[in-house]
Amino acid sequence: MTQPLALGIDIGGTNTAYGIVNRRGDILHKGSMPTTGHATVQEYIEALKGELLPLIDRFGRDEIEGVGVGAPNGNYYTGEILFAPNLPWKGAAIPLVKMLNEALGLPCKLTNDANAAALGEMMYGAARGMKDFVVVTLGTGVGSGFVANGQLIYGHDGFAGEFGHMISVRDGRKCGCGRKGCLEAYCSATGIVATAEEWLTEDNSPSLLRGKEGKLTARDLHEAALRGDVMALQIFEYTGKILGQTLADMVVVTSPQTIVFFGGLAHAGDILFRHVRYYMEESMLNIFKDKVAFLQSALPDADAAILGASALVW
Amino acid sequence: MTQPLALGIDIGGTNTAYGIVNRRGDILHKGSMPTTGHATVQEYIEALKGELLPLIDRFGRDEIEGVGVGAPNGNYYTGEILFAPNLPWKGAAIPLVKMLNEALGLPCKLTNDANAAALGEMMYGAARGMKDFVVVTLGTGVGSGFVANGQLIYGHDGFAGEFGHMISVRDGRKCGCGRKGCLEAYCSATGIVATAEEWLTEDNSPSLLRGKEGKLTARDLHEAALRGDVMALQIFEYTGKILGQTLADMVVVTSPQTIVFFGGLAHAGDILFRHVRYYMEESMLNIFKDKVAFLQSALPDADAAILGASALVW
Repeated sequence: MTQPLALGIDIGGTNTAYGIVNRRGDILHKGSMPTTGHATVQEYIEALKGELLPLIDRFGRDEIEGVGVGAPNGNYYTGEILFAPNLPWKGAAIPLVKMLNEALGLPCKLTNDANAAALGEMMYGAARGMKDFVVVTLGTGVGSGFVANGQLIYGHDGFAGEFGHMISVRDGRKCGCGRKGCLEAYCSATGIVATAEEWLTEDNSPSLLRGKEGKLTARDLHEAALRGDVMALQIFEYTGKILGQTLADMVVVTSPQTIVFFGGLAHAGDILFRHVRYYMEESMLNIFKDKVAFLQSALPDADAAILGASALVW
Repeated sequence: MTQPLALGIDIGGTNTAYGIVNRRGDILHKGSMPTTGHATVQEYIEALKGELLPLIDRFGRDEIEGVGVGAPNGNYYTGEILFAPNLPWKGAAIPLVKMLNEALGLPCKLTNDANAAALGEMMYGAARGMKDFVVVTLGTGVGSGFVANGQLIYGHDGFAGEFGHMISVRDGRKCGCGRKGCLEAYCSATGIVATAEEWLTEDNSPSLLRGKEGKLTARDLHEAALRGDVMALQIFEYTGKILGQTLADMVVVTSPQTIVFFGGLAHAGDILFRHVRYYMEESMLNIFKDKVAFLQSALPDADAAILGASALVW
């Protein structure tokens, strides 16, 4: 074995990204395929196998120490994906580690996508050398990975870190998890679009967003806000307020040095984060005021997820 | 040195309890004195010194490895008590470790009272052998100690675990910390009394609590509820609902195996905890439903705090 390698796989709601990674965090090869569009999880695994087996042969089966996977609601202890509202295969437990292990013939480990991102940031990214931090992923959903005393917190069942399912608005908007008012229902890419669709219906004020009802994206909102659209700017303030207030509730429990933001909506920059910062500090217990730093992930989105997933192997 | 000993001190809002403890967790001697009634923190330390020096002489200065202290807002890293709303000495930082070290001539360590309780439960109590659990103290205030991967979580600043200051009711009742709607403002012994005082003013329905306005205690409420008083029973349901909903938000982040309840209000038993359990499960994310056990501290209140504080020494 010349140089130990790992195969990192990030299963997102829309795309699955994968890469061959060495111990230093160099991605030697990467690729992606759609997560959606497969009738069953078996067909998805077959398609993934079709992508990965040639890659494993190319880099040499003996060189690859194992496969690390990050996926929504992925459980480190059981190797299963359980009730993932943002994946096409809903419902019961999917024995992903077992299926992938059979398909690829390599040892396999699983954790949730946000935990994988936290591992990637700790080993190769913005959180290098930190012992107490949180990664918050603002993508299709809202996820989080908590590191305390330099260790990822899995909790008793392997499901710790579901920050996106703290209740931000009691009896609020319906969430994909079946409950009401979760942070994710407001502060994910889909959540902010839902806010815009609601406001466009309830309000008659002019906006660049009009005419796009029913097919709005978070990117449309960001572009309208950059052009000074008042409604779009107010939607970012509303979203930032909910995220900031909920972060303040999370900080009192875990006391992180830094919160690293990651995922599509994290790129909204100051348009979102000046409000997140303002409302977080406004709601913050005095002993934590002005102490918690915000960072944006220093790694390209796909890379961090692949690196983090691969870090499960080492 | 025949048998190594530790001096454990628990500084509460009303009383300070202390004890000489061996490594097995036997309390060889214990005592207490009022925390209140001293004009300054210096006078308090002088009074404490007057109690402790004879004890240290009696057990032998050379036998005592050190002093462990649990106190509200006690910081493990700095040795200071900061902004403790439930202690008589408010305001700036109190360098407790430095003061006690000078007064007693022994090495000294500090953490907050709930972290000390968590250490006590892990080493000698209901959480023996558990790696992921939370101790929630329901006393004058609401505190918590989080253990993950078998380690107490101090967080970056040493202040992690302030579960009592999660915002349970947005823009709700004023809390001692200066903000509004904290869990502690509703679900501590003082919080439940505040609810009763409010309800007695706003409502005319008959209750055994009438006539005690302005001097009610949590014990009065418990006794009235045990006698079937409708208002007292409803106050326990209201309090249990807020605690249960806020616990559900905490569980999604930390995924504990067990929540150990501790402190005066924890003795309310089923009158409170059937509501806590019901509303926690009602608000719970599906992957955590019916998984988190409730336990009452297996140690007498004063003992657990002394044992936990002493555990800082080992």
